[in-house]
Amino acid sequence: MISSQEYVAKLRKMRKNVYMNGELVERDDPELLPSVRVLSKTFDLPGDPRFKDLITTTSHLTGETINRFTNVNRSADDLLKKQKMIRKACHLTGGCIQRCMGCDAVNALHFVTLEVDKAYGTEYHKRFLKYLGYFQKNDLTAAAAQTDVKGNRSLRPGEQKDPDLYVHVVEKRNDGIVVRGAKNHITMASAANDIICVPTRAMREEDADYAVAFAVPADSEGIKLITHVSNPRPRKVYKAPIADFGVADSFVIFDDLFVPWERVFMCGESPFAALLAHGFALYHRHSYTGCKPAVTDIVTGASALVAEYQGIADKPHVRSKLAHLSSVAELVYAAGIASAVEGQQHESGSFIPNTVYANVGRRHAGMNIYHESEILADLAGGLPATLPFEEDFANPETKRFLEKYIMRKEDVSPDNIQLCFRLLSDMLCSSLGGSSAVAGVHGGGSPIMEEIAIAATYDFDEKKRVAKYLAGIEGT
Amino acid sequence: MISSQEYVAKLRKMRKNVYMNGELVERDDPELLPSVRVLSKTFDLPGDPRFKDLITTTSHLTGETINRFTNVNRSADDLLKKQKMIRKACHLTGGCIQRCMGCDAVNALHFVTLEVDKAYGTEYHKRFLKYLGYFQKNDLTAAAAQTDVKGNRSLRPGEQKDPDLYVHVVEKRNDGIVVRGAKNHITMASAANDIICVPTRAMREEDADYAVAFAVPADSEGIKLITHVSNPRPRKVYKAPIADFGVADSFVIFDDLFVPWERVFMCGESPFAALLAHGFALYHRHSYTGCKPAVTDIVTGASALVAEYQGIADKPHVRSKLAHLSSVAELVYAAGIASAVEGQQHESGSFIPNTVYANVGRRHAGMNIYHESEILADLAGGLPATLPFEEDFANPETKRFLEKYIMRKEDVSPDNIQLCFRLLSDMLCSSLGGSSAVAGVHGGGSPIMEEIAIAATYDFDEKKRVAKYLAGIEGT
Amino acid sequence: MISSQEYVAKLRKMRKNVYMNGELVERDDPELLPSVRVLSKTFDLPGDPRFKDLITTTSHLTGETINRFTNVNRSADDLLKKQKMIRKACHLTGGCIQRCMGCDAVNALHFVTLEVDKAYGTEYHKRFLKYLGYFQKNDLTAAAAQTDVKGNRSLRPGEQKDPDLYVHVVEKRNDGIVVRGAKNHITMASAANDIICVPTRAMREEDADYAVAFAVPADSEGIKLITHVSNPRPRKVYKAPIADFGVADSFVIFDDLFVPWERVFMCGESPFAALLAHGFALYHRHSYTGCKPAVTDIVTGASALVAEYQGIADKPHVRSKLAHLSSVAELVYAAGIASAVEGQQHESGSFIPNTVYANVGRRHAGMNIYHESEILADLAGGLPATLPFEEDFANPETKRFLEKYIMRKEDVSPDNIQLCFRLLSDMLCSSLGGSSAVAGVHGGGSPIMEEIAIAATYDFDEKKRVAKYLAGIEGT
Amino acid sequence: MISSQEYVAKLRKMRKNVYMNGELVERDDPELLPSVRVLSKTFDLPGDPRFKDLITTTSHLTGETINRFTNVNRSADDLLKKQKMIRKACHLTGGCIQRCMGCDAVNALHFVTLEVDKAYGTEYHKRFLKYLGYFQKNDLTAAAAQTDVKGNRSLRPGEQKDPDLYVHVVEKRNDGIVVRGAKNHITMASAANDIICVPTRAMREEDADYAVAFAVPADSEGIKLITHVSNPRPRKVYKAPIADFGVADSFVIFDDLFVPWERVFMCGESPFAALLAHGFALYHRHSYTGCKPAVTDIVTGASALVAEYQGIADKPHVRSKLAHLSSVAELVYAAGIASAVEGQQHESGSFIPNTVYANVGRRHAGMNIYHESEILADLAGGLPATLPFEEDFANPETKRFLEKYIMRKEDVSPDNIQLCFRLLSDMLCSSLGGSSAVAGVHGGGSPIMEEIAIAATYDFDEKKRVAKYLAGIEGT
Repeated sequence: MISSQEYVAKLRKMRKNVYMNGELVERDDPELLPSVRVLSKTFDLPGDPRFKDLITTTSHLTGETINRFTNVNRSADDLLKKQKMIRKACHLTGGCIQRCMGCDAVNALHFVTLEVDKAYGTEYHKRFLKYLGYFQKNDLTAAAAQTDVKGNRSLRPGEQKDPDLYVHVVEKRNDGIVVRGAKNHITMASAANDIICVPTRAMREEDADYAVAFAVPADSEGIKLITHVSNPRPRKVYKAPIADFGVADSFVIFDDLFVPWERVFMCGESPFAALLAHGFALYHRHSYTGCKPAVTDIVTGASALVAEYQGIADKPHVRSKLAHLSSVAELVYAAGIASAVEGQQHESGSFIPNTVYANVGRRHAGMNIYHESEILADLAGGLPATLPFEEDFANPETKRFLEKYIMRKEDVSPDNIQLCFRLLSDMLCSSLGGSSAVAGVHGGGSPIMEEIAIAATYDFDEKKRVAKYLAGIEGT
Repeated sequence: MISSQEYVAKLRKMRKNVYMNGELVERDDPELLPSVRVLSKTFDLPGDPRFKDLITTTSHLTGETINRFTNVNRSADDLLKKQKMIRKACHLTGGCIQRCMGCDAVNALHFVTLEVDKAYGTEYHKRFLKYLGYFQKNDLTAAAAQTDVKGNRSLRPGEQKDPDLYVHVVEKRNDGIVVRGAKNHITMASAANDIICVPTRAMREEDADYAVAFAVPADSEGIKLITHVSNPRPRKVYKAPIADFGVADSFVIFDDLFVPWERVFMCGESPFAALLAHGFALYHRHSYTGCKPAVTDIVTGASALVAEYQGIADKPHVRSKLAHLSSVAELVYAAGIASAVEGQQHESGSFIPNTVYANVGRRHAGMNIYHESEILADLAGGLPATLPFEEDFANPETKRFLEKYIMRKEDVSPDNIQLCFRLLSDMLCSSLGGSSAVAGVHGGGSPIMEEIAIAATYDFDEKKRVAKYLAGIEGT
Repeated sequence: MISSQEYVAKLRKMRKNVYMNGELVERDDPELLPSVRVLSKTFDLPGDPRFKDLITTTSHLTGETINRFTNVNRSADDLLKKQKMIRKACHLTGGCIQRCMGCDAVNALHFVTLEVDKAYGTEYHKRFLKYLGYFQKNDLTAAAAQTDVKGNRSLRPGEQKDPDLYVHVVEKRNDGIVVRGAKNHITMASAANDIICVPTRAMREEDADYAVAFAVPADSEGIKLITHVSNPRPRKVYKAPIADFGVADSFVIFDDLFVPWERVFMCGESPFAALLAHGFALYHRHSYTGCKPAVTDIVTGASALVAEYQGIADKPHVRSKLAHLSSVAELVYAAGIASAVEGQQHESGSFIPNTVYANVGRRHAGMNIYHESEILADLAGGLPATLPFEEDFANPETKRFLEKYIMRKEDVSPDNIQLCFRLLSDMLCSSLGGSSAVAGVHGGGSPIMEEIAIAATYDFDEKKRVAKYLAGIEGT
Repeated sequence: MISSQEYVAKLRKMRKNVYMNGELVERDDPELLPSVRVLSKTFDLPGDPRFKDLITTTSHLTGETINRFTNVNRSADDLLKKQKMIRKACHLTGGCIQRCMGCDAVNALHFVTLEVDKAYGTEYHKRFLKYLGYFQKNDLTAAAAQTDVKGNRSLRPGEQKDPDLYVHVVEKRNDGIVVRGAKNHITMASAANDIICVPTRAMREEDADYAVAFAVPADSEGIKLITHVSNPRPRKVYKAPIADFGVADSFVIFDDLFVPWERVFMCGESPFAALLAHGFALYHRHSYTGCKPAVTDIVTGASALVAEYQGIADKPHVRSKLAHLSSVAELVYAAGIASAVEGQQHESGSFIPNTVYANVGRRHAGMNIYHESEILADLAGGLPATLPFEEDFANPETKRFLEKYIMRKEDVSPDNIQLCFRLLSDMLCSSLGGSSAVAGVHGGGSPIMEEIAIAATYDFDEKKRVAKYLAGIEGT
């Protein structure tokens, strides 16, 4: 394992291929730092006594101690620990810990490559295990690049007018493949060591060129990262952790990227595109049963705090709203527990989360995001939207008025009241807050994607048999 | 274990103390039979190969095989099996299996009596174990009588104008106690062998006479059961299991009931009334994480079936609604799993479900009941409300018209269409259907009771600490 | 105008063609009386000083005083008065007043027949006006038979395997037409003087035989009414208006019914089937903005009453729930007002409600039905489901216990508490209650039908222009 | 009437008393301009032929043509026109038109001053009419300062430890009064000519000093405006109206402000504080039935547009969501229509909106704000959160990739796609978007305030009488 300083030093050495605000920028550009800080936290936590046992584990390849964010889950207990680690870590960064997506891609590739090998006699699994060893040894972070830009939503990949609207292989060479296309919404790509590309959906045989998976350094020739950041308003006077962390999302452009064969994990085996796409989504949705409860925890805590400061903590309607928030968090978390407990062992050694529970959990989280903001806004009143800027709390001409008139309960200092509402401003009235809500709906698959997954995997026939038996249509 | 025939034979021998429709009736009165049939199912299932392993277990007292409905849960696995058994059994009776409440009362008494003994030096636990042996050996069913009639809701028990509005001890004698009061909404009391009385709420010291728990035969002198039944419309032509089962709820009157000391399990230890009240509620809410998913399963199955028969099963809005139904079922079930996995061992040997998960699960179920009916009604159209009576489907003068005009998809027979919609009529447009919805909200504690339980037990302070850390108010 | 006695006398004289429970029954069969009583109320109200000005108006044909339920709306004020009349009348029957559907059919035919005449040179309007005069003079009630049985939902009328699954003309003769098919869910058909048949949907040219509208006596040769009733449990001891009224819905079978030309109002003019189908739906949905608020009023009143009796009327969560109920009622009512105010004059003299407002109002009502029941159940507790039968309140052996233990607030008599909860039982836990909920979703068109109507008529393009202007895509 | 240039020129001449970001700033500071531009629009519209008839009217004082934003509503038609004007104007500024609050304060003072005069023999009404003439003649904008900072929410004004936590009179002099305290969340105070102060709530006799109302220039000695702005990210390349407009909200500090008697409209008449507080809220909530539908229109238009661009406009779930959005807009608008139609004439000449309809309308709007954002986010996918910045669309190194890969339907240009999603970014993922949502909940009174107003004014007793009649408890 490496330190966060080593991680950042590696970022600095990478080739410049991040574009933002019309310029080519360094990976530690001030606008990108809030995202880098999130990832850094995952390198610091192994040194934190509260986290050490949770965030470190043993590699099944080497027996060495590794960061759990590089681990292949091989038991229900692994999944339970991963879920718990994510929830706890997200508390410290005020939201998405960002490193799980690479880990989830690794977990999906671990069992899917074996399935492909069994069907095609290929050697992807062995190849992947070698990459995994390298990944764990170097304590890498990876962005999972899954979501294609997709062009016309009513056409399949090969039917698009521009064939590049889904990532595809344009050339196979002796030493590797050449890939073209773009993936969008790729979180932390500008802070990742590697990019792991997986298919976005099931593919038909005629779309075999689109059934492609691989891993490459994020600064490879042939990759451009056009990056959007969502950061909180920087603090000048009243510092707070919430204002240290942010998100960077990239359009990842594969401009005839060359990938050597040793990093190619699927290439043309179209019947397995679905398994890999869904396998990644499954592990990722299980990760969401850790991070989404954390996000709800933060809303719950902020709601309880502002209710306390307003002196309304004991009102029945407040109790009811806090109970609702905690119910959302714990139902989603319970779904993750059930997904682990009801998961299954794969012959690769992977332990695969139960699909139904991972999906109902992620769906429930996604369906409650905006309602959670509504509850927080409801309990807070208008101040998150109208709170004077921090400099006015420092300006002697206005400070005495603001400190006098912001008072609520006498035993809470004006500074704490201000800090509380400034947290709420960052959560409710900032570009980062808005982006987090959108990501809470769509990240890892929006509720409608979970409904499709549930429709495909839930045993509705069993329920129909129950109904038919009760109706007298058939026996049971 | 006994057979259902033996169970019914015992009911017939009991003293007549059931009042209904202005008359004193037998326990196997035709109006009561639908409820008796539900209980009978729990005696038949041990003989069903599909259920044998689930519904039988080993008594930790005697090592003998017993019905799981008389078992004391001593591990997470016990709770998981109980939950699964309830879900499966409810599928067969079209709803509430009715026998869990007595089992849940037994489970609460098992650990609470030990706690009381430790505090007061009493011998309730030993006394209870003796009763438990008798309960298991005779394969008894019991109604848990918890909900007092409560009079003026803004007054505590001892403050009521009429002191009998909560059940209380009116005399202590050498050989036992005399009890007066009434419990209402007591499901299956008229089909129970015994009645187990537990407090409805926390009690203050001045209300010590109201801190009372005991078990007695349901036909004891001093008990009157004034009973309301909710039964489906009886079928004459088109028989169906859904129409075989019903519910009987009683006002249980304790008219100076004498209880011998050997059946008294709490008598005046007011500080422990809360533990027993909540302990019973906790086990019972965990049971709800089994039965409520079953009820939702039935709605899901009926919804999927009617959608199939209408030819709309593949519409996106139908898929979305079915996904919602299955999500409700599985989130509640997942909460039960998490409640077991995160439960704790008690020194009595009891395994106690996790409170937060049991409560968020029960709450989620209760909050979705009416919405589930709405979805079913939405997919069904108006026919559940307007379907001609079954006799008209048999009357030659109308039969040919109804069979001609009820047709939907060609490959579904008019009989099956009719049976499907008649099931829906029973679910949506019957007194039993309406009563089940009300019970779904309030039985075992309505959502507001779970919110109170969550408010009392959830670690909101931890969440506030997270918020304070992020806000910069305090470190972490 | 005639008296309710005259109305019932006329029903008695009609040919027997109502089938129920496997038998051919009289129109005043005890099971049908609860529905007859609802209609009778509309004949009594002109004699009630509180209603006289609201329920009587002047015929524009004859200048004579008529019942507003036979009136053609010719101004916004007419629509406002109709809406108010319906709301007030429904209060007295505990729900649907049942007579508006015939009135709404008459209103639709009034302007559509003129449109057809203009396009085809036919004389339907003149013919219709003659019928209207007869309808008003004889103070008739009519069932509007619109909803075809529809067979396979994915096939159009002419595509069905059985061509009779939509009502159609099978023969045109010199003196009239012969019609075959069935309409279902036809409320009050067994209590109606006439049946007015209108198309259920738009028709293509090849389905011209299905574009048919006419009016006939309900006991015509060739008509069979197979009838389902939803009645409250009859009261023996504790009488109450809620238990007097019920609903009868019929499968209306047209078994080669002959209709003389003078009663045919559309016959083959397929392009106008949509206008008539939607025109009837529009007037009917406007009527729903009167009746649905009334139903919500009853839920609101019952909720407020049971909250008062329980002593919880001043709790914030109760206030919030009552505010929600009243909001549903008043938003729906406001939509009806807006629909009238924003309606338009037709050259026939008809005043046509605004489509968008009628539809958003009806939709909002339909989407809240089950939630209203949920609120009532929530405030009531379990007693609506478990209240002992009225005979037990009369039986001396149980009366004293029930009266003692049902007490809540001291100033409310046990009789009133019982009557209140018995009302709630009838509303929440009866076949009528369940049927009313289903009817509340689907009657007059379910929310999805309103969404289709909104999609077809709302000016989304104007909203898109606003968005494009703000986005800088195009000017404004 | 004056031009927007004259309006801005007047702002520039005002005394500097606006504080922001720790500095004393001009009223046309670049950060404040987006708010000034909103107000300017109200001065431009009288010259726009589409608006002229709507936004101009005739003063009942002078007979001169005035801007409707300075008009006293004297008929239902006045209210209907005001509502329509606001809806149309908000379309042009992408949200709150900001000028109605001063108009609503003027409307409330118009009838309340007469009521106070009648009770106390004062001359407030005459005094107010003089101010009104000046207000209309000079085409003034005013901020209504109502919301006190309120300190400890569980204490009344006079009970606070610091008596200044509600605005109050600290001295009465011959020439006027001296006022101290602060109002917060005061929108457009920094862009207003005048500030009109009204009480925030009912006052008891002992709080008579807090029953105070007055109007003063916004730059008076003794006033400080500490201002927070919520502006969209400024556009450099791709200009759009949405990015031109913003909101400025102020803490308005009354630091011993002197108010001459001629501008004092209430001073100590505590029984009328409630009438003025509620009267202003009533007119303001009626205004919300104009602006909130406009905000929903914009969400509807943006949703419809992005659905079109994504090629999913004809999907049933999209239709359903668009129907829901339009239903929210039109139900709220219908409530405003009903509030006007059912309003009442006051002897002052004022026409007062119906309270119930204004409140159910405002409540429905407030309860749907976050859900509207959720729908928009749902239909848009993740791009509002991850769209590269506009400069990257201009940078030649990235432009070709972004234009290639952002394509959706072939007939929509990449620029239009980009502009559409940039609009969505501004709506969903900006501080202004977040602030608008918070304001949508709380501005003009949050839903809980409307529930309190409904509880106080709705005729629940009438509904209880209906329930009692139906239950058989009492006749009707």
